[in-house]
Amino acid sequence: MDLPKRVVIVGGGFAGLTCARALRGANLDIKLIDRRNFHLFQPLLYQVASGALSPGDISAPLRSVLRHQKNVQVLMGEVTGFDPAGRRVTLADGDVPYDTLVVAAGAESHYFGNHEWEAFAPGLKTIEEATEIRRRIFEAFEHAEREPDETMRRAWLRFVVVGGGPTGVELAGAISEIARDTLKDDFRSIHPEEAEILLLEGETRVLPPFPPDLSDRAERALIGLGVRSRTGVRVTKIDENGVVMATSEGERRIDAHTVIWAAGVRANSLGKLLAEALGASTDRGGRVVVNPDLTVTGHPNVFVIGDLAHCIGDDGKPLPGVAPVAMQQGRYVARNLICRLDAVAPGDFRYRDKGTLATIGRNAAVADFGRIHMDGFLAWLAWLFIHLLYVVGFRNRVLVALQWGFQYLTFNRGARLITGVVQPVRPEARPELSTARPGED
Amino acid sequence: MDLPKRVVIVGGGFAGLTCARALRGANLDIKLIDRRNFHLFQPLLYQVASGALSPGDISAPLRSVLRHQKNVQVLMGEVTGFDPAGRRVTLADGDVPYDTLVVAAGAESHYFGNHEWEAFAPGLKTIEEATEIRRRIFEAFEHAEREPDETMRRAWLRFVVVGGGPTGVELAGAISEIARDTLKDDFRSIHPEEAEILLLEGETRVLPPFPPDLSDRAERALIGLGVRSRTGVRVTKIDENGVVMATSEGERRIDAHTVIWAAGVRANSLGKLLAEALGASTDRGGRVVVNPDLTVTGHPNVFVIGDLAHCIGDDGKPLPGVAPVAMQQGRYVARNLICRLDAVAPGDFRYRDKGTLATIGRNAAVADFGRIHMDGFLAWLAWLFIHLLYVVGFRNRVLVALQWGFQYLTFNRGARLITGVVQPVRPEARPELSTARPGED
Repeated sequence: MDLPKRVVIVGGGFAGLTCARALRGANLDIKLIDRRNFHLFQPLLYQVASGALSPGDISAPLRSVLRHQKNVQVLMGEVTGFDPAGRRVTLADGDVPYDTLVVAAGAESHYFGNHEWEAFAPGLKTIEEATEIRRRIFEAFEHAEREPDETMRRAWLRFVVVGGGPTGVELAGAISEIARDTLKDDFRSIHPEEAEILLLEGETRVLPPFPPDLSDRAERALIGLGVRSRTGVRVTKIDENGVVMATSEGERRIDAHTVIWAAGVRANSLGKLLAEALGASTDRGGRVVVNPDLTVTGHPNVFVIGDLAHCIGDDGKPLPGVAPVAMQQGRYVARNLICRLDAVAPGDFRYRDKGTLATIGRNAAVADFGRIHMDGFLAWLAWLFIHLLYVVGFRNRVLVALQWGFQYLTFNRGARLITGVVQPVRPEARPELSTARPGED
Repeated sequence: MDLPKRVVIVGGGFAGLTCARALRGANLDIKLIDRRNFHLFQPLLYQVASGALSPGDISAPLRSVLRHQKNVQVLMGEVTGFDPAGRRVTLADGDVPYDTLVVAAGAESHYFGNHEWEAFAPGLKTIEEATEIRRRIFEAFEHAEREPDETMRRAWLRFVVVGGGPTGVELAGAISEIARDTLKDDFRSIHPEEAEILLLEGETRVLPPFPPDLSDRAERALIGLGVRSRTGVRVTKIDENGVVMATSEGERRIDAHTVIWAAGVRANSLGKLLAEALGASTDRGGRVVVNPDLTVTGHPNVFVIGDLAHCIGDDGKPLPGVAPVAMQQGRYVARNLICRLDAVAPGDFRYRDKGTLATIGRNAAVADFGRIHMDGFLAWLAWLFIHLLYVVGFRNRVLVALQWGFQYLTFNRGARLITGVVQPVRPEARPELSTARPGED
């Protein structure tokens, strides 16, 4: 084994999996390490959180995706350290040697030092978090149905999404559709459509990464869906009873039992471990700074890609942590490795921005294709088409399409299970349950 | 409110939900109470445990099923007691008054006094248990892939199903198909098809409720699938390393890291509470003994139905805890209540046995239609058709049919996620990971 053939890829997300697949047929001995046994299609995770899709529909078992690619071995394991001198990755239960290392460990929710908020406002990065958010959303309506006190009931029917980026907008729109359409006829004591959905954003407009005109159109679409967005506000506290936000008029408390965090992400903790081991610099979000060829300075055999990498784009700004960047970086590293095998000099990585989309709800989305800005039904169709195209696996594509079809026609969401910890819906005792909806029967 | 109009149904399983639906249009004020917000199609729960279907595919939100039935209010809550004198059901958070009470709280796994076995051998009664079993099955292969020691690897590739009734047979068959078909090309260090699947049964034959000739045919089908069944054995110990069984030749230990409990069920703990409150008798499984009209002696306004009821059939033996019995009892109670409203004397409940089916695997099932006994492809088709017919909701029916179609054609299982507690795959440290499968590369 004289040629540097052992490639270890850490992470089976968009970056790592794309890299492994692009190395199909290469004369390499590849190991793909992930904590989980599946690739997760994160852009649709909010649809699991809102009961529209099942976890299995947006997950593809890594082994299944790579089953016929004989140069790849998938290892399920937790990376605990890097030893660049010994060229080994340390797992919780053993070492894996490498000649070339590709780290694509991804991002996690960032609470900016307020870890205690996580319990009251979960983020949306894993399947478990998605089903937990789903539980909280649907359980809130159950609590409201059984709550005789008007003020308390209102707090159960108030939903706060912190962060007005694409994930926050998608979640707020989905919760609104749940309240107005999905649950319309389901309750007897409450009117779910009276739910208030608040979207809080620190910048002066929602969807800050988009051009201002598209932010405006998104805001109008949100209003149409009944979502109230507050921009230019800063959250200063989150507890079990709600959120305190600082506005230009001072602090204000919002009583709400369901709060979801979509305000920020940072590099996975492996980023810090890796940077320390390599002597690399990181940015404020913990991302590892990489060279134009995505290697780390002083370590030409270590690549960092995806949400974990701080990579400067053509406009001098760091590239965003989105799937297209991750996939293009994965493909670039694969090409780079094949060039090296053939002793050809590889060029630098260049990101080709094909556009950005964000969906707001039924028939509503915004799309930024550089000079062309779109919104409404056409943008929504584009969003639908592109997301279906990139869902991994034919089976998942059909299942997602079918369930979207059902949902579009019936307004129903089939996967609205409350699972996990089942708590008594109302801990406080009370003599008798109200029967009739006010003003009915 | 002079007429006894307030009906409380405890439990939204086959018995309770069927009863509520059969009361459509009746001039009654019905409350359906369940801990969960969904009806679970339990006969297909083993397909969630084996990664073939997602939890959402076999669950129907109770509110959604009953949304247009205005005489029913669904309450999500945990029943903690019964007060027959005050005609109230006590919940964790309040009381619900009734004129007529229908208790259909179902069954739970029964370890016959060995509660400590539950941690090592989970049963299959809830969605959470199904995803936990799924995690254990698929994680076992991950452990085996990374285990260099031959004996240890074999223990990871050995699966023990305790209990040879329909659930045990279905699970054993499904695990065998996972090993032989689904995972065939997925690993590099192990051959999944070398997995051993053991089915342990205390009686002298598998599927004891079926006629002996069908047990024989099921046994042959299991052998064809590579499942080894041991009948006439008694499990005397279960721990993290396996099972000890008592056979006619003495005790024998089986080293296995994955053990599943399908050996017995008993009435939900609400059965005991109810029997104590009513002064009713229970059988050894905790089921409440009911009269021929499914009421409890001395309480003509309290019905017990489904798996919670001990009801004698025409043959003098208690009716089995299966869905058809529960559904027929639910419909009977609805008819009975309507008769009472009309001051008509209702007759007694009589179970009409339309036949019993058990599936073993691809193209293999047994069916007992009284004089007609079937096995093989035809029985399997009948099983498929009947299960699709009874899955609640058009959407679920299409999703299940579609995924069965995919699986039949590709042998793949799409919902094989390892979720929940993610543990290091191998806690013991070891110097280096093996690369090649023995005899390859």
